[in-house]
Amino acid sequence: MRKIKTLLNKIKNNKISINKALDELRILPYEDLGFAKIDSHRTLRRGFPEVVFGDGKTTEEIFEICKRIIKNQEILLLTRANKSIYNKLKKFQKRIKFDESSRLVYLESKKAKKRGLILVITAGTADSKVANEALITARVMGNRVKLLLDVGVAGVHRLFAHIKLLQRANVLIVIAGMEGALASVVSGIVSKPVIAVPTSVGYGASFKGIAPLLTMLNSCSPGVSVVNIDNGFGAGYFASMINK
Amino acid sequence: MRKIKTLLNKIKNNKISINKALDELRILPYEDLGFAKIDSHRTLRRGFPEVVFGDGKTTEEIFEICKRIIKNQEILLLTRANKSIYNKLKKFQKRIKFDESSRLVYLESKKAKKRGLILVITAGTADSKVANEALITARVMGNRVKLLLDVGVAGVHRLFAHIKLLQRANVLIVIAGMEGALASVVSGIVSKPVIAVPTSVGYGASFKGIAPLLTMLNSCSPGVSVVNIDNGFGAGYFASMINK
Amino acid sequence: MRKIKTLLNKIKNNKISINKALDELRILPYEDLGFAKIDSHRTLRRGFPEVVFGDGKTTEEIFEICKRIIKNQEILLLTRANKSIYNKLKKFQKRIKFDESSRLVYLESKKAKKRGLILVITAGTADSKVANEALITARVMGNRVKLLLDVGVAGVHRLFAHIKLLQRANVLIVIAGMEGALASVVSGIVSKPVIAVPTSVGYGASFKGIAPLLTMLNSCSPGVSVVNIDNGFGAGYFASMINK
Amino acid sequence: MRKIKTLLNKIKNNKISINKALDELRILPYEDLGFAKIDSHRTLRRGFPEVVFGDGKTTEEIFEICKRIIKNQEILLLTRANKSIYNKLKKFQKRIKFDESSRLVYLESKKAKKRGLILVITAGTADSKVANEALITARVMGNRVKLLLDVGVAGVHRLFAHIKLLQRANVLIVIAGMEGALASVVSGIVSKPVIAVPTSVGYGASFKGIAPLLTMLNSCSPGVSVVNIDNGFGAGYFASMINK
Amino acid sequence: MRKIKTLLNKIKNNKISINKALDELRILPYEDLGFAKIDSHRTLRRGFPEVVFGDGKTTEEIFEICKRIIKNQEILLLTRANKSIYNKLKKFQKRIKFDESSRLVYLESKKAKKRGLILVITAGTADSKVANEALITARVMGNRVKLLLDVGVAGVHRLFAHIKLLQRANVLIVIAGMEGALASVVSGIVSKPVIAVPTSVGYGASFKGIAPLLTMLNSCSPGVSVVNIDNGFGAGYFASMINK
Amino acid sequence: MRKIKTLLNKIKNNKISINKALDELRILPYEDLGFAKIDSHRTLRRGFPEVVFGDGKTTEEIFEICKRIIKNQEILLLTRANKSIYNKLKKFQKRIKFDESSRLVYLESKKAKKRGLILVITAGTADSKVANEALITARVMGNRVKLLLDVGVAGVHRLFAHIKLLQRANVLIVIAGMEGALASVVSGIVSKPVIAVPTSVGYGASFKGIAPLLTMLNSCSPGVSVVNIDNGFGAGYFASMINK
Amino acid sequence: MRKIKTLLNKIKNNKISINKALDELRILPYEDLGFAKIDSHRTLRRGFPEVVFGDGKTTEEIFEICKRIIKNQEILLLTRANKSIYNKLKKFQKRIKFDESSRLVYLESKKAKKRGLILVITAGTADSKVANEALITARVMGNRVKLLLDVGVAGVHRLFAHIKLLQRANVLIVIAGMEGALASVVSGIVSKPVIAVPTSVGYGASFKGIAPLLTMLNSCSPGVSVVNIDNGFGAGYFASMINK
Amino acid sequence: MRKIKTLLNKIKNNKISINKALDELRILPYEDLGFAKIDSHRTLRRGFPEVVFGDGKTTEEIFEICKRIIKNQEILLLTRANKSIYNKLKKFQKRIKFDESSRLVYLESKKAKKRGLILVITAGTADSKVANEALITARVMGNRVKLLLDVGVAGVHRLFAHIKLLQRANVLIVIAGMEGALASVVSGIVSKPVIAVPTSVGYGASFKGIAPLLTMLNSCSPGVSVVNIDNGFGAGYFASMINK
Repeated sequence: MRKIKTLLNKIKNNKISINKALDELRILPYEDLGFAKIDSHRTLRRGFPEVVFGDGKTTEEIFEICKRIIKNQEILLLTRANKSIYNKLKKFQKRIKFDESSRLVYLESKKAKKRGLILVITAGTADSKVANEALITARVMGNRVKLLLDVGVAGVHRLFAHIKLLQRANVLIVIAGMEGALASVVSGIVSKPVIAVPTSVGYGASFKGIAPLLTMLNSCSPGVSVVNIDNGFGAGYFASMINK
Repeated sequence: MRKIKTLLNKIKNNKISINKALDELRILPYEDLGFAKIDSHRTLRRGFPEVVFGDGKTTEEIFEICKRIIKNQEILLLTRANKSIYNKLKKFQKRIKFDESSRLVYLESKKAKKRGLILVITAGTADSKVANEALITARVMGNRVKLLLDVGVAGVHRLFAHIKLLQRANVLIVIAGMEGALASVVSGIVSKPVIAVPTSVGYGASFKGIAPLLTMLNSCSPGVSVVNIDNGFGAGYFASMINK
Repeated sequence: MRKIKTLLNKIKNNKISINKALDELRILPYEDLGFAKIDSHRTLRRGFPEVVFGDGKTTEEIFEICKRIIKNQEILLLTRANKSIYNKLKKFQKRIKFDESSRLVYLESKKAKKRGLILVITAGTADSKVANEALITARVMGNRVKLLLDVGVAGVHRLFAHIKLLQRANVLIVIAGMEGALASVVSGIVSKPVIAVPTSVGYGASFKGIAPLLTMLNSCSPGVSVVNIDNGFGAGYFASMINK
Repeated sequence: MRKIKTLLNKIKNNKISINKALDELRILPYEDLGFAKIDSHRTLRRGFPEVVFGDGKTTEEIFEICKRIIKNQEILLLTRANKSIYNKLKKFQKRIKFDESSRLVYLESKKAKKRGLILVITAGTADSKVANEALITARVMGNRVKLLLDVGVAGVHRLFAHIKLLQRANVLIVIAGMEGALASVVSGIVSKPVIAVPTSVGYGASFKGIAPLLTMLNSCSPGVSVVNIDNGFGAGYFASMINK
Repeated sequence: MRKIKTLLNKIKNNKISINKALDELRILPYEDLGFAKIDSHRTLRRGFPEVVFGDGKTTEEIFEICKRIIKNQEILLLTRANKSIYNKLKKFQKRIKFDESSRLVYLESKKAKKRGLILVITAGTADSKVANEALITARVMGNRVKLLLDVGVAGVHRLFAHIKLLQRANVLIVIAGMEGALASVVSGIVSKPVIAVPTSVGYGASFKGIAPLLTMLNSCSPGVSVVNIDNGFGAGYFASMINK
Repeated sequence: MRKIKTLLNKIKNNKISINKALDELRILPYEDLGFAKIDSHRTLRRGFPEVVFGDGKTTEEIFEICKRIIKNQEILLLTRANKSIYNKLKKFQKRIKFDESSRLVYLESKKAKKRGLILVITAGTADSKVANEALITARVMGNRVKLLLDVGVAGVHRLFAHIKLLQRANVLIVIAGMEGALASVVSGIVSKPVIAVPTSVGYGASFKGIAPLLTMLNSCSPGVSVVNIDNGFGAGYFASMINK
Repeated sequence: MRKIKTLLNKIKNNKISINKALDELRILPYEDLGFAKIDSHRTLRRGFPEVVFGDGKTTEEIFEICKRIIKNQEILLLTRANKSIYNKLKKFQKRIKFDESSRLVYLESKKAKKRGLILVITAGTADSKVANEALITARVMGNRVKLLLDVGVAGVHRLFAHIKLLQRANVLIVIAGMEGALASVVSGIVSKPVIAVPTSVGYGASFKGIAPLLTMLNSCSPGVSVVNIDNGFGAGYFASMINK
Repeated sequence: MRKIKTLLNKIKNNKISINKALDELRILPYEDLGFAKIDSHRTLRRGFPEVVFGDGKTTEEIFEICKRIIKNQEILLLTRANKSIYNKLKKFQKRIKFDESSRLVYLESKKAKKRGLILVITAGTADSKVANEALITARVMGNRVKLLLDVGVAGVHRLFAHIKLLQRANVLIVIAGMEGALASVVSGIVSKPVIAVPTSVGYGASFKGIAPLLTMLNSCSPGVSVVNIDNGFGAGYFASMINK
């Protein structure tokens, strides 16, 4: 920033020709001005700071990053965390929480009002880890959320018993392993976007999530899009973007 | 047969010792006696002659095989046929029929009463070629059959509108491409065996039937088993075996 | 509908006991009342009639279905069409259009105001067939749309030249074959949902779209979700759902 | 149920018009009447309560579910169990058994007569875990069962030594890893349905069961259908459905 | 050759020092002496000239190569040929033959006595193209050969009817598509090496030969080795090597 | 055996008609006479008893099977063994040996003369486990064997330094992971059959042996056939069959 | 460019405050100044204009693009071309050439001196299409090039006969289908970078180039890197970058 | 060497005829003269001794090999090492270092001047293990190196902030997991060769590195070539070859 300001002042004071200034500007932006600025723009617009990915970072690194975020903002989302990093952050800010199943450490804004309704639906109880990751992500990002567990297509009436809830949601996240057929069925009932999350739950030819991934990509019902296997965070984040 | 008879006569007439006869018997059965016998046993028991696979045989070969079957029995099933072989057989036996979509040439028994009810269900209209192959196979093999088209899971109510028909069937064949979720949903409604047939209908990541194949193998509903991609004949044949 | 009315009248007139009526109701809904109703509900809510899939249907069937839709509504969307069906429908309703590259036949509402902005972005010119399918689908469904062609990541500055347009869009559809990296880059610049469409364009190890599909599913930028390979229609439909 | 009864009473007592009642009925069924009813229907028809899947549930949850089933019915089938849950249930009902190899906890009906004959055949001794899962499932569901171990195709005479047993069975379950060829050979000998179960037993290019899965799907003998890799339970359940 | 002779003569005549000669020799062999020599060694030992692969060569190139081989030797084997190249070679040497199914052009030695017995076995009639390629390759290379068609495992008795022939063979080539189980069954009956050739014959999940390839690689019977999909030539060549 | 003898005696003593005897014979062979006999035939011909596969059997079962084999024959081969079963067998027969790297327990015949020469070649030192399995299998089966380690194609001169040894061998087993190119190179130098064994040694895109497996199947040199990934036993067994 | 100049003039003339100018600059660069500039920078540095990809563009579009390039520069490279576009360009500039096998249209600089030596090596004659694409690309980009055909590893001596040529090259491009082993062998002989190009030439389990691709990626010899299947252009381009 | 010398002396002394000598020479080279010589040639040319692969060798073997290399040369590179082998070598030569993350043990030359600039770029912090392997390999081989961490495409401005550094490098190594798009973006900015290394970092459908591998192979930017998944060593080695 300073560099550019100095440059512009030089122009003003006729210490540099316009053509010369032009040449310097051409390479300057990438280092000092443009892109870094865009980044803070984004944060301001979203009302949501950078998410911290816990994997591949040391506990110390994570702690330093999170501390800085908490100081500046009132909210935090840290994925792939563990209990020890949680305990360390807890001492720093009491309101921080930890969800063991989804391995999320998070801090919700005290004042923020929740928007709309994001409904997280799972085919089986074994999908609940991924469901919690989606649910908490969406809630921390400022959305009202609900969870509907264990309504897989093998007993499709369980799903229909909740038809009003389904139709009230603004965005639906459908989480399913094994054959992953639930996304298509849900999408056929509602008129809102359905985000499908294949999970690696299953045996044999589910191939760690490939089977439900293909099922969901091939959904015969328009209105379904897919995120990566087990990527509850991505689904929650995407749903939040839609819900704004 | 003659060889064995001769051998036994030799024993009877003391022209050969029992130990010597024993040695000869050990290798004889595989050539003359045993297995060929089993084969005709099978045909008799099934009340159904050998199915003729049209692929990889010349028109002349197919014609000769079919002629012999028609002479001996009143029924015939020829897969992967074409119009020219049909026309040739038609001259030989007027009651023979040809279904162009499934490429089956067949002759139904005049007198045979149809058994039970095999219901063939498809997810979309594009699956009807495979459905016809299953339907005709099952009918020629002596079963009552019905067809329920275009009841895919994107509008699951279309399926429920036929719930009584579904529950009346003895065996159900579910044929679906794209995401193939229909088999699980049907199986969750009925208490009869469901045979799932993945089809190569679909775009992109359906990978010529791999997507519905995996979906069906990973069905979360017990009571589903699977045959090869597009294998309507196999499904009809298997359903007929169950229905007997 | 009549059946239920008759039943309720019987109750009113004491011609049937309440328990008996209850028993009949339990199975009735699936045949006559419930689900068909839901379906029309959906159409009303969406302001958009059923999309017609052209594949696997005869020209005659397609014509009949489209005629009925055009009569009732002012808009139509028919996928996987061809020139002959277009010519036939053209005689029936002059305003119908045909896009050869995407094989869509469509009729746009005369009066409807377009909502928001859906931006369709492609990595290369060879992706334009899929792009047109997405674009027209979204436009017919009542959205304002724009197309940004040939801004792949091999020359990322081409993309940045349009940064204001990118940031103005409400939803972005990114279409890319080969390595499919464009979706991540776009998502990193904007704060709106990005729908990624892998295409089968590419050579060798792109494996008919598997390479960009995997790239997009593994996007390191949250805010990306994926539809099936070459599924421009699905992307346009999903974007329209978000944009409402 | 109460809601509907109340509604019908209102009609009877003229407290609501028929048209108004109709409107309420349209949305009611999914919540209170229809599907839950269907579910108990199914249980009654099958003479077999819900199977409990042990995976992804806490010991406490499993215990509560099983207790309730045992109270109402005389039989129980719990998959993916372990010794601790078995010991806990054992105190509650002494007749409960545990098969360590297949991880099944089960309770057989005291009085029920066994039907027909389901023959479970394995290619090698290493397939016996999956075989036991199929065998016990079928027995608990009320079928007579037999086990034929280690008759793989590398020494096909071992299979033929049992030809009479094979031909006496009503349904055959063939369990094989490695190359999985046994299903085709067995199917060629008998005239009854063969359910093939690929197992993940094998080395190198068996790819955890993909090799036998493909072998079985491509069986050149009609009369074979396939369930998921290692899915002994699914095979036993499907066989039982056929055997009824 | 001349270069080396010259060099050695120089040593003899003291025109070059031994150390200098050594230096020249170090690089010489690769260009002029060593490997080309090895090559003719091989041809002499094998009694069989280079096989000519027809793919990717022009008709003219093939003709020139074949002409030279025919002049020097009495035998020829040209794969992936066609009728036009055959007709051209026919004029040059009348005894040349062409097998259309396997696309082989070949010339058998007039005098050579055939060795041993190589038995070529196929599962179905559709595998006969590959079988012919194996058969003719082995015969041209000087082996006695027999063909046993259509003895797939769906009717294993057909195979056993020929058990004596199977046991008389020195090497067996088993050719099968679909599930490819025949190799294991044959290997279990004989005590000679079995060469398995998967074929791309089959539907759906045979995936152009992957299914039988995996089956054969995973054969539970030791004594089976595998060549590439549809590679009849490779099997015939390998069998011939063993039979010598 | 007794059953047949009794039957033949009945014929001799006219206690049964020849036709009646014929009927009984038709089903008898499979249970008592035929196949078991074939089995011992095979053992006699091969001069080699059944190989014992250690996987999936209890220590007790293995011990019992091995004891019986050792009593009858002078040789033994037990795969996938461990030290404890070795120690147990050692007490029973002192000459038994154990190779820890290949997990083989074996007993070589004292008197048998070794035949021919089987050369086992590896690309890297990491392939030596599989090499030892092949080497010992071939030696126990009565072949002379040699081992040539670490002559991979990255330094092809290491291979050529042993060209005479290569050309002296009757059969060659080439064991390679990573890219598996060694088999083609070896086969191009010698005129004897080459058995290729892909190993799961390698990183990244070797995919646990798929890369070298495909390399070997696609060898551009005729005279190569392939066994399963890491299947040293299968290669040794197959080589021994050829060497006889 | 003009926009920025205007802006800077405004500063100079005090018509805009420095802070205001800063704000405008932040977004300006991406549209008008920065990246387009970088692009021409690149072209100047490389001495090589944009390569034109012929696929997915109309003949008219290609013609217009090429005309403009030819006017400005003396060289041109157009991939995936055909004869008709060549004929059209030929009229415009006589020195343009067309290579039918590689589908390249190109114009070489008249004056440019060729640098270094790039050696293009193929395993078989069928790989020559890809080889020509690599060769011409490298030559047009200003490199000396040589072609060495048909030196696959099945006869490794053919390669060694050219060892001096191999060692003289600055960069080597190795093109191979089938098993693709040639890259490792070549890399083991030379001390220069080897670029490996897998080709889709091959049968059966070469899977359209996957087999050689995996082989090359897993090369046990460091000094090998890989481009996409059949991507001769990419290899030539990369080699040229190294050779500069 | 001695053998050849003896032979040449015999020629000189007329103790052997030239033809006889010729015959002996034909087979000699492979054992004693040629290839071993080539090998030392290579080491001399490269100024870099053999790299030692730690995998599959005992600590003792590694120690002996490394000791010999250190004695002769001043540099060493040992991959896949561990702390215990490092400690052992440390006692032998104090200047040896160990990088735990990349598992490299190495010794840098004291005097050697570093050449050029190889820039190692990673998409995320989790890719740093592979980055260190590439970095140290290139440095030990005599190159100047720099590391640029965590500049993935989700925030492409982070990359542009370093554009001058990117453009100064002679070779660039781009290391990325997840979607691997960074290589294309970097290549589009610079005019130097980019070596792409896919890593196995990622979740779900990254399939242990297949996703970034395919992305990189399909890069739409020419000037990218790829090494095996996680193969930092291979990338560093290849970059060093280019940089010379």
